[in-house]
Amino acid sequence: MFYRFETEVPLRWVDVDSAGVVNNAVFLSLMEQARYAYFRHLGLLDDHRVPFVLAEANVRFLRPGRLGMNVAVAVATSRLGGSSFDMHYEVRAGEEVLVEAKAVLVFVDEATRPTEIPAPFREAVAQFEQLAAE
Amino acid sequence: MFYRFETEVPLRWVDVDSAGVVNNAVFLSLMEQARYAYFRHLGLLDDHRVPFVLAEANVRFLRPGRLGMNVAVAVATSRLGGSSFDMHYEVRAGEEVLVEAKAVLVFVDEATRPTEIPAPFREAVAQFEQLAAE
Amino acid sequence: MFYRFETEVPLRWVDVDSAGVVNNAVFLSLMEQARYAYFRHLGLLDDHRVPFVLAEANVRFLRPGRLGMNVAVAVATSRLGGSSFDMHYEVRAGEEVLVEAKAVLVFVDEATRPTEIPAPFREAVAQFEQLAAE
Amino acid sequence: MFYRFETEVPLRWVDVDSAGVVNNAVFLSLMEQARYAYFRHLGLLDDHRVPFVLAEANVRFLRPGRLGMNVAVAVATSRLGGSSFDMHYEVRAGEEVLVEAKAVLVFVDEATRPTEIPAPFREAVAQFEQLAAE
Repeated sequence: MFYRFETEVPLRWVDVDSAGVVNNAVFLSLMEQARYAYFRHLGLLDDHRVPFVLAEANVRFLRPGRLGMNVAVAVATSRLGGSSFDMHYEVRAGEEVLVEAKAVLVFVDEATRPTEIPAPFREAVAQFEQLAAE
Repeated sequence: MFYRFETEVPLRWVDVDSAGVVNNAVFLSLMEQARYAYFRHLGLLDDHRVPFVLAEANVRFLRPGRLGMNVAVAVATSRLGGSSFDMHYEVRAGEEVLVEAKAVLVFVDEATRPTEIPAPFREAVAQFEQLAAE
Repeated sequence: MFYRFETEVPLRWVDVDSAGVVNNAVFLSLMEQARYAYFRHLGLLDDHRVPFVLAEANVRFLRPGRLGMNVAVAVATSRLGGSSFDMHYEVRAGEEVLVEAKAVLVFVDEATRPTEIPAPFREAVAQFEQLAAE
Repeated sequence: MFYRFETEVPLRWVDVDSAGVVNNAVFLSLMEQARYAYFRHLGLLDDHRVPFVLAEANVRFLRPGRLGMNVAVAVATSRLGGSSFDMHYEVRAGEEVLVEAKAVLVFVDEATRPTEIPAPFREAVAQFEQLAAE
C-alpha cells in the first residue's frame, strides 16, 4: 500500500494491558482516530459525527506495542464502491509496523441500511487517493 | 461453526459511542473476555495471565449493538497448529448475531517468539472441541 | 450509607491494567453503569440518554480489584437540590468494599447550563429513597 | 495551585461518549497518563511500572470536553508524607480548565501494604516542587 496520510496517535499508560503490551482493542481505537483525522483532513467530517459504519476489519498484529513508542497511523482508501469503501491502515512505531489492517466501511441511513456514497465524499477521496471513478 | 461454549458479557453504558452504538473496539474486549472465560472453563488459565497473543483478527460487524441488549459470546477453537491456533467468535444478542470473527493466536515466549503449544493445552482443547490430533 | 439498590457489573479481562489490578478509571465506568441501572430501575431513563452530568466525584480506592471477583455496585441518592443531587456508590466484591464514592450530578440544558430537576424525577427518587421534599 | 509541569494528552474519537462529550472516566486516564509523564520527566519511573497506587481522587468536572480541543494536563505534587503524597491536576483546553482534581497516592509493597516513600523519589519531587522536607 502507498499511504498519503499519516497522523500521530500518542499512547496512554492505560493502553498497556496486564500482559504488558498495548491491548489489541486499543489498536482499533487508534485506527478509528486516524480514520477520523484522515476525513477531517479531507474536509469531509464535522464535529465527531461519522456517516458510515465499520462493516469489516481484518487486522494483523505484527509486533507488540509498548509504552514509550511514538506511534503514528498511516491511512489510505483503496476502493470506492456504491455504498461501501475499503481502507488500509498501518500502525507504526518509527520504522516498525506494529499492526496492519484492512477495513470495509459502509454509508448507512438512520436505520443502518446501506446508502449511496455521497458525491462530495466520493470526489474528495478519489482526488486525494488518485482513484479511478467507478 | 458449531459452538460448545457461550458466556454472557453484559454491556456497560460507556460501551456506546457517540454514534449511538456499541463501539467496534468494545467487541474485541468482549471477545477477549469470552476467550478468557473459555480457557478458564477448560481449566487452562490461572489468574489473568495468558501465554499466547493475538496475531490476527478478522471481524465482521453485522448488526449494531445497543444498550439494553443481553449480549453473550460463543467461542470455539477450530484448529490447533504447531504454535498457533484458530478461534471463532459469535457475539449474540438473543437470536441475532451482532459480530462474527475469526482469530489466530500464537503461543510465545518472553521475547514474543513463537513457541510450541504446550501438551496439556493441546489435549484439553482437542478433547473439548473433538479436534483430531495433528 | 444505607443502600436500597445494588447491581452486578461483571469485570472484563481488559479492566485489569499493567499493575495487575482493575484500573482506577474502570471504577468510574462501573459506577456510571450502576447509576444508569439505578435510574432505569426507577423508570426514569429511556435508551442510553442521560439528562444530567457528573459535576463532581470523590472516590476512595480501598482495596485492589482483581479478575475473578464478583463485583456489584450499590447506589443511593442522598440529596435532591434545585438542579443538583448527590449520589453514593459502593463497589463491592462479596463482603469487601473495593471503592466508595460520592458524586454530585446536575441537570443541564443543551448548552450545559443548570436546569431545575424535573418533577417526575424528583418524586420518583424521593419516594424510592424516602427523602424529605426540600 | 502553581503548576511546573504540563503535558499534552490528545483526545481520541472514542473518548466522546453517547452524551457527545468526553466521558468522565477518560479524564482519569488522561490524568494517569500525565502523572506517568510527570514522574518520567523527573527520572523516577522505568517502563510502565508504577510503585504507588491511587488511594483517593476528588475530581471536579467544570466544562465538557469535546473533540477538536487541544487538551493538556498540568500536574503538581503538593505534599510528601510518610508513605502517601498529594497531587493536583488541571485538564486544560487552551485557556479553559475542563477538570480539576486532587489525588492521594500511596507507596505500597506487593501485598498492597503502605511502605515508606523511597528517598530518591522524595528528594527528586521535593526539589522539583520546592517542597520543604517533612
